[in-house]
Amino acid sequence: MISLLTDFGLQDEYVGLMKGVILSIAPQARIVDLCHHIDPQDVVQAAYLLQSSFSYFPEQTVHIAVVDPGVGTERAVLGARIADHLFVAPDNGLLAPLAKTFACQQLVRVENSACFLDGVSRTFHGRDIFAPVGAYLTNGLALSELGPEMAGERIQPLDMPSVQAHAQALEGRIIAVDRFGNLITNLRQERIQTLEPTEAAVEIGLKGHLLSGIYATYGQVPPQSPLALVGSRGYLEIAVNQGDASRYFGADKGDSLWVSRKAIQAGASSRS
Amino acid sequence: MISLLTDFGLQDEYVGLMKGVILSIAPQARIVDLCHHIDPQDVVQAAYLLQSSFSYFPEQTVHIAVVDPGVGTERAVLGARIADHLFVAPDNGLLAPLAKTFACQQLVRVENSACFLDGVSRTFHGRDIFAPVGAYLTNGLALSELGPEMAGERIQPLDMPSVQAHAQALEGRIIAVDRFGNLITNLRQERIQTLEPTEAAVEIGLKGHLLSGIYATYGQVPPQSPLALVGSRGYLEIAVNQGDASRYFGADKGDSLWVSRKAIQAGASSRS
Amino acid sequence: MISLLTDFGLQDEYVGLMKGVILSIAPQARIVDLCHHIDPQDVVQAAYLLQSSFSYFPEQTVHIAVVDPGVGTERAVLGARIADHLFVAPDNGLLAPLAKTFACQQLVRVENSACFLDGVSRTFHGRDIFAPVGAYLTNGLALSELGPEMAGERIQPLDMPSVQAHAQALEGRIIAVDRFGNLITNLRQERIQTLEPTEAAVEIGLKGHLLSGIYATYGQVPPQSPLALVGSRGYLEIAVNQGDASRYFGADKGDSLWVSRKAIQAGASSRS
Repeated sequence: MISLLTDFGLQDEYVGLMKGVILSIAPQARIVDLCHHIDPQDVVQAAYLLQSSFSYFPEQTVHIAVVDPGVGTERAVLGARIADHLFVAPDNGLLAPLAKTFACQQLVRVENSACFLDGVSRTFHGRDIFAPVGAYLTNGLALSELGPEMAGERIQPLDMPSVQAHAQALEGRIIAVDRFGNLITNLRQERIQTLEPTEAAVEIGLKGHLLSGIYATYGQVPPQSPLALVGSRGYLEIAVNQGDASRYFGADKGDSLWVSRKAIQAGASSRS
Repeated sequence: MISLLTDFGLQDEYVGLMKGVILSIAPQARIVDLCHHIDPQDVVQAAYLLQSSFSYFPEQTVHIAVVDPGVGTERAVLGARIADHLFVAPDNGLLAPLAKTFACQQLVRVENSACFLDGVSRTFHGRDIFAPVGAYLTNGLALSELGPEMAGERIQPLDMPSVQAHAQALEGRIIAVDRFGNLITNLRQERIQTLEPTEAAVEIGLKGHLLSGIYATYGQVPPQSPLALVGSRGYLEIAVNQGDASRYFGADKGDSLWVSRKAIQAGASSRS
Repeated sequence: MISLLTDFGLQDEYVGLMKGVILSIAPQARIVDLCHHIDPQDVVQAAYLLQSSFSYFPEQTVHIAVVDPGVGTERAVLGARIADHLFVAPDNGLLAPLAKTFACQQLVRVENSACFLDGVSRTFHGRDIFAPVGAYLTNGLALSELGPEMAGERIQPLDMPSVQAHAQALEGRIIAVDRFGNLITNLRQERIQTLEPTEAAVEIGLKGHLLSGIYATYGQVPPQSPLALVGSRGYLEIAVNQGDASRYFGADKGDSLWVSRKAIQAGASSRS
């Protein structure tokens, strides 16, 4: 099985061509579109999504991830085995969170051009390199056939907004807005619990609004009301029940938000 | 075979995760995306689409339909056999038109958590409940294993705009606007024929415009001209040949339209 | 294997229904979405895309292409074998570039209604004619079973903007804008080389801007800088490294551009 994660969108033929190439090499491959609507060149968004998604696929799935602003330059291509899944991606940070969280079981720099299409273009490595390499892995080719072994610590780090820990608050960021307008942040549930384990005792500040407590699901507040909850990825999300949080808050990717204990509510609200 | 109908869109990873879960349980399943662009939480739109679409799939197909504003609340999940197809959907009206039109061969309330993912979230039952339940059905699990039988008349009705019958006219509504700007209504061909069987003798009023007659296809009027026709779903559609009816009429989902016999044309046009 | 190319988009159920029909007839078919976001009724865009894409699929793939402004009128449906691939498409120019570039190995006019769905609608031949015909071809049905043979020269030509050859310049057009805002033109690399074989000695005029030279990849210019390159289709593209060329130039589909030798740069720039 192969999963595809790209910023190619579905407007053009790019994803279709990758599938044509894969099925030319591995006719029996099952191909699943994980997501093709990563914001163009947003490696951070792709890295988060891949890390929270891959485990819903069967072990041995080959995950091909192509968000690749450096296509055609000297950036390396990585092949990796992590948590018994296989990954093919550019070495631009996309695999860094995965490799940090899980042990990298095997890591190679993909250089064996016998696994590429003839006449590799310099603008579409998704079709010419990533797709065929992933297809050969699905066919059972060993990672070691793709190129030299590489140490996990040599993976390019992700250039991502990190969570800032203040005295009694965490400052995070919105890293994605989903189709429903839900605001997905980089604040992991476990991190918030180290600040304050009681979810009702937490408050969140975003764009001058204060939200009280972390809920379990949308329907716990009235329709069109805002709420904070831990989303299906395990990260804090800001939502509006049956509504669009992005519009409600006028908030977008990159905006920061605060999580604090209610004790300091007065101070927090004075920020708005 | 499995078909998927959701309001998740393809912008995010939600559909990809459902497929990962399905193929983890039923590796041989064929999965077809029926549609993922139902307007968010528009159960009516999904119910119409499913009713007019399912019969184009092979019998025994498992149709997983997730448009679910009540996710995480006490709304039930239904498993049904209707017209020799299988359906899994929230009990919010989504299956009501189907169950009304066809006899419900079997209906259960899905409660067997052994068929769910471990640690069901309260925000993403598509991944945690609907996908695995559908996958087990594809593997041959009997509906009766999913939960207790339920009487068909206990299905939640659909909260939908109904067709209003006036003395010599029908008043319907636009329930969807497709990619081409075609306006799809809730006026079924058979219903219009009870009003006036001769299609040329019908007129349609929409947003102050009057359309004369019901055509068979777009090309029967000049390019950029409006027309009424019976669309591929069997419902009245308003279109513009090689154009966009939504823009032409300034019309959108929820707008009402009138169908009457030409004899009362003068009265009808005075409405505009 | 079957590839699908349409202007149906993914907003509605149209593509899902085609797949349901195909899999009802050919349950083992592998279906790949080549592209569904051709601009509505843009036969030229579809024809270019198909010509540059089909060879990335395995031989014997059945390519179903439905961009069909004449649906329901008397336009013919074609079945063709070209370069050991099979094609089903309306006779509106969509296959014309392919049939011109490669020898048409076999060409028939599809008329055998035994291969259509019962009760063909007049608005959705994708579901009622193209999908089942393609499915039967995948099952091994011979082209000759579909209808009478037809001479290749009788294919409807494509109504497309052609490249204008001037004394020391070529005038082409933008035929598509991709998801990244890259501007894809109808100027083929080989055609430009007949004007000036040295890529650094070429200049391009678009919307009052002058671009110097043809690059190999985006990363050869600084971020946010414009460049010309030969895209993955083999045609000249105008791009902005890590940016959006469509916005940068205020350019859209249909706009013309000039390619000339640098020797006449002064004259060219006076055009802006």
